[in-house]
Amino acid sequence: MIPNQQQQILLASRPSGKPVKENFQFEQVSVPTPSDNEILVKTLYLSVDPYMRGRMSSAKSYVEPFKLNEPIHGGVVAQVVESKSDSFKVGDYVTGMLGWQEYSIASKKTVRKVDPELAPVTTALGILGMPGLTAYLGLLNIGNPKEGETLVVSGAAGAVGSIVGQIGKIKGARVIGIAGSDEKISYLKDTLGFDDAINYKTTDNLRAALKTACPNGIDIYFENVGGEIADAAMSLLNKHARVPVCGAISSYNKKGGEDLGPRIQSYLIKSSALMKGFVVNDYSHEFKDASIQLGKWVKEGKLLFEETITEGFESIPEAFLGLFEGKNLGKQLVKVAEPAE
Amino acid sequence: MIPNQQQQILLASRPSGKPVKENFQFEQVSVPTPSDNEILVKTLYLSVDPYMRGRMSSAKSYVEPFKLNEPIHGGVVAQVVESKSDSFKVGDYVTGMLGWQEYSIASKKTVRKVDPELAPVTTALGILGMPGLTAYLGLLNIGNPKEGETLVVSGAAGAVGSIVGQIGKIKGARVIGIAGSDEKISYLKDTLGFDDAINYKTTDNLRAALKTACPNGIDIYFENVGGEIADAAMSLLNKHARVPVCGAISSYNKKGGEDLGPRIQSYLIKSSALMKGFVVNDYSHEFKDASIQLGKWVKEGKLLFEETITEGFESIPEAFLGLFEGKNLGKQLVKVAEPAE
Repeated sequence: MIPNQQQQILLASRPSGKPVKENFQFEQVSVPTPSDNEILVKTLYLSVDPYMRGRMSSAKSYVEPFKLNEPIHGGVVAQVVESKSDSFKVGDYVTGMLGWQEYSIASKKTVRKVDPELAPVTTALGILGMPGLTAYLGLLNIGNPKEGETLVVSGAAGAVGSIVGQIGKIKGARVIGIAGSDEKISYLKDTLGFDDAINYKTTDNLRAALKTACPNGIDIYFENVGGEIADAAMSLLNKHARVPVCGAISSYNKKGGEDLGPRIQSYLIKSSALMKGFVVNDYSHEFKDASIQLGKWVKEGKLLFEETITEGFESIPEAFLGLFEGKNLGKQLVKVAEPAE
Repeated sequence: MIPNQQQQILLASRPSGKPVKENFQFEQVSVPTPSDNEILVKTLYLSVDPYMRGRMSSAKSYVEPFKLNEPIHGGVVAQVVESKSDSFKVGDYVTGMLGWQEYSIASKKTVRKVDPELAPVTTALGILGMPGLTAYLGLLNIGNPKEGETLVVSGAAGAVGSIVGQIGKIKGARVIGIAGSDEKISYLKDTLGFDDAINYKTTDNLRAALKTACPNGIDIYFENVGGEIADAAMSLLNKHARVPVCGAISSYNKKGGEDLGPRIQSYLIKSSALMKGFVVNDYSHEFKDASIQLGKWVKEGKLLFEETITEGFESIPEAFLGLFEGKNLGKQLVKVAEPAE
């Protein structure tokens, strides 16, 4: 039964600094009707990701800003409930970038099918989706870890960081993670097999702790967080070190002029180091091969993953805000509805 | 006539912040006698370079720190005055890394011959030497300028920057220089043919001036200076921009914790930009080809160069200190003696 009305979440105002609940507005709107070649899908799982903070600002970035008073968009796993397309039938699972709403219109241009037999459908938003591809493509294209090298990853217990570290281990690197709770530290060391992990929140001198954990210096620093953690890592780079810059979550909520740290030019010269920013779409021509490899490793049990799932459409803003408190272990998702049989 | 005594300059103390004359000490010492396979050379020209500041500190860097109470070493053009080597005869010109002293012992392991017929011998310390190779190899390997792209170079009137800009023009880029005096600005625009040049000392808002000079954004920022000039350039990078990091002269005299600026991770992500530190020796396998190409361009009149030459051994410290005041146009040299006929 498809209802007439549904909920959606609009961007009510642009955050100044840290986002707050008031930036989001719940609306009751009609459930739309698909036209020819379109489908109506029901949102099952919704992904909240740090990069979305950037789209809430009006500043030019690598993706368009969200528009005010329009629904926020993000990664979604949904199920087809009405089809006017030859490509999909009712009951199919799909994934794509859709609005924060309970029902959406989609088409084969905007979503792709997900096979629930291959892996749980939520992995399309995590290890087999954008975060997995981001970890794989950024680490291998820019970081290029070699046997015996030292890889440090920040945000190590997050959706991207936890995969980066495990791929580093597969490639034979010594892997050190930085994360923000003792639970996360145990997860990294005991479950994921990281060589060492540092809780930056309880460490007095992060640079000294990193230096101890990396007696041979740092060959690759995979950057997810920026800020003082990055400052410490940058000062310990080895000759010809590589720094894939994936995220800088600590700076996303800072206002202009607030995110100051040691300038890093001298570190880069001293170590002839390479630092490169990227977004996953820079490597879209490699998505297919990367997905196959990630799927293989998951099946072989070489890549483990964790999901933190909050329940209910109304919990979306809170789940998003929690990202900046470091609340999630692995991929943060919101479960909006149960799949139909 | 070879004297018995000569002058040399020792590192008397390590600079704390900006170097001062008192960091240097003049000594009278004996002129040494060459052993078998060695030569005695008379210093004619001596190169003073910003990177030498790094060697005056005790911190680990890409080259060994100078030792206290020992002669400072740097690039030198000298003439053989006594030879016990089959490879050199009296009167030959040579270049290499030698002490700041009037006479030195050398061998074919430490110096190479310079042909005074090909180009003035001073070019071995400038456009056909380390600064020329640095400009060529850093710009082409990391910056990779393409027809129609925008190249911004800081320290643009210096030994490296002036060559970077001219090679950028040869490669078809639009070239904007940043320098610190109106004389330098005229030189860049009127003599070297830069498309535009900005005097950062007389510009109220450097970022706005850069934005105006680069209506299509910045594709390559060749970094020689660091500091606020770099901050402004980094904020204007285009998608897939490249930043060769050659020097950061504005930070060399800062004490620990003083060189703060906006963290740049977000800029790098936004533009998927690459930033890479380098030293010329990273590309030593390309020295030969690069030297040939540089020599060709000089002969064809496509690469012009300027030298600022102070006279007399006693002027060495002052010439070195002047680098940090931006006093030099092009390569800063010290002429220590006239060549013999």
